[in-house]
Amino acid sequence: SISGSDLFFKCENFQKAGAFKIRGAANAVLSLSNEEKKHGVCTHSSGNFAQALALSAKLCGIKAFIVMPKTAPEVKIKAVKGYGAEIILCEPTLASREETSEEIVKIKGATFIHPYNDYRVIAGHSSLVMEMLQQVKGTLDFIVSPVGGGGLISGISLAVHYLSPKTIVIGAEPEAANDAFQSLKTGIIQPSLNPKTIADGLLTSLGDKTFPIINELVNEIITVSEKEITEAMKIIWERMKIIVEPSSAVTLAVIIKTKEKFRNMKTGVVLSGGNVDWGRVPFLT
Amino acid sequence: SISGSDLFFKCENFQKAGAFKIRGAANAVLSLSNEEKKHGVCTHSSGNFAQALALSAKLCGIKAFIVMPKTAPEVKIKAVKGYGAEIILCEPTLASREETSEEIVKIKGATFIHPYNDYRVIAGHSSLVMEMLQQVKGTLDFIVSPVGGGGLISGISLAVHYLSPKTIVIGAEPEAANDAFQSLKTGIIQPSLNPKTIADGLLTSLGDKTFPIINELVNEIITVSEKEITEAMKIIWERMKIIVEPSSAVTLAVIIKTKEKFRNMKTGVVLSGGNVDWGRVPFLT
Repeated sequence: SISGSDLFFKCENFQKAGAFKIRGAANAVLSLSNEEKKHGVCTHSSGNFAQALALSAKLCGIKAFIVMPKTAPEVKIKAVKGYGAEIILCEPTLASREETSEEIVKIKGATFIHPYNDYRVIAGHSSLVMEMLQQVKGTLDFIVSPVGGGGLISGISLAVHYLSPKTIVIGAEPEAANDAFQSLKTGIIQPSLNPKTIADGLLTSLGDKTFPIINELVNEIITVSEKEITEAMKIIWERMKIIVEPSSAVTLAVIIKTKEKFRNMKTGVVLSGGNVDWGRVPFLT
Repeated sequence: SISGSDLFFKCENFQKAGAFKIRGAANAVLSLSNEEKKHGVCTHSSGNFAQALALSAKLCGIKAFIVMPKTAPEVKIKAVKGYGAEIILCEPTLASREETSEEIVKIKGATFIHPYNDYRVIAGHSSLVMEMLQQVKGTLDFIVSPVGGGGLISGISLAVHYLSPKTIVIGAEPEAANDAFQSLKTGIIQPSLNPKTIADGLLTSLGDKTFPIINELVNEIITVSEKEITEAMKIIWERMKIIVEPSSAVTLAVIIKTKEKFRNMKTGVVLSGGNVDWGRVPFLT
């Protein structure tokens, strides 16, 4: 009734490790050869992918080496350690992350798995669409997904392309980190320059594997303000009584902002995760 | 794994109006004669029952008069108004609440429905047990329920008595508002004197209808500290990614505190509601 649309929420906040990332991480780990498994996996992430890969590796009985900036919140480092991963701290720059990862790969023989710019990860995320179509028992007119590095929306739009080609995929992005919007507009990858948004899962730039998929298959990217994100997040907490992180709320924010588009339509709304930094909930501070 | 027990959570935070109270309120409204319906219903409550009765009345097309202390938070008054009820403000004392309610009943001819000390309300709450037994597909060794005025646990223990007599019902209460614990111990109703707990749904004393049921059918009441309540609440928010109010978290707090009792048992855990005062979440301030 907020939007005049039938909304079906895909609650990835209830996933293992609290976010959709486990889909891609698990698929990547399960794709390894026995030889590769012996040497473990490596990634650089301070966010949900770090936890997801650590858990996937643990469940598969293999090692995980996670490169994290030394500025990462203690609680995130602890969570990754809790899944039994080995943490390697680096400087908080992309260059340091990449160098450190390369070194680990060289020394340990681990397989590098990028948090989103990796076909195994993208393919894993596709599983979300199949589940969603089964759960709604029918077709969807729209699916709205957050866009950060583009791994999730790439997986979604590939699956939609094959399983439900009439469904329109819309990306939801913060105005304050609108590099995907700009990339789609200009036809080339635009880097995410100094993004400042509460939706801290959506800070990254698109990759050379995710951008072409998005460019071909995503219908449109709609951006929302920080205020719109915060208000949508509060609605989800208050009315639905579930915990989602700010990056999840951008999808509902888009639907509320552009409600005419969704009126009388059946819309799938991806709530991507629920890992919240308790000190940074905007309507509580 | 927190308790070594199989826990089945009954998530009343997802109920209409955000709490279990809609069960009793709806049953009470549906029990009215056509003549009574013409004149509406009245209660005094600043909490979840006010919203539940207002919504039940609205769905039934009848009037609701809700007596609320003038010190009630603006957000709660607004929520009740949002359901179309007429609000009558009174002084923040039990005497003023009761006097004001009596006056409304006299002037308007409305039927008074007590928030918990009412057999129609108690009977409505019983429906929770039938649902829960269907959902767990089998029996439960324990059901743990919060105790405030005793309406919920009375309904639960009556239903258990008839539908699943081997299930043991345990009450969960804050140490700082342990009047039900004291009442069960002494065999007479002990008033709730100056209770100070974050579990603000559990401040009230037992009633002359709820106490005898509890005294006969509730196996035991276990109390928990404010710290234990807060920690349990944080676990529910953080791990289960759902919003519950502090009064709900006392049940999990009891299970964590006395985990030996529940080891290898199947336990139903009632999460009674999810209406949170955002300014008063203990681990966020």
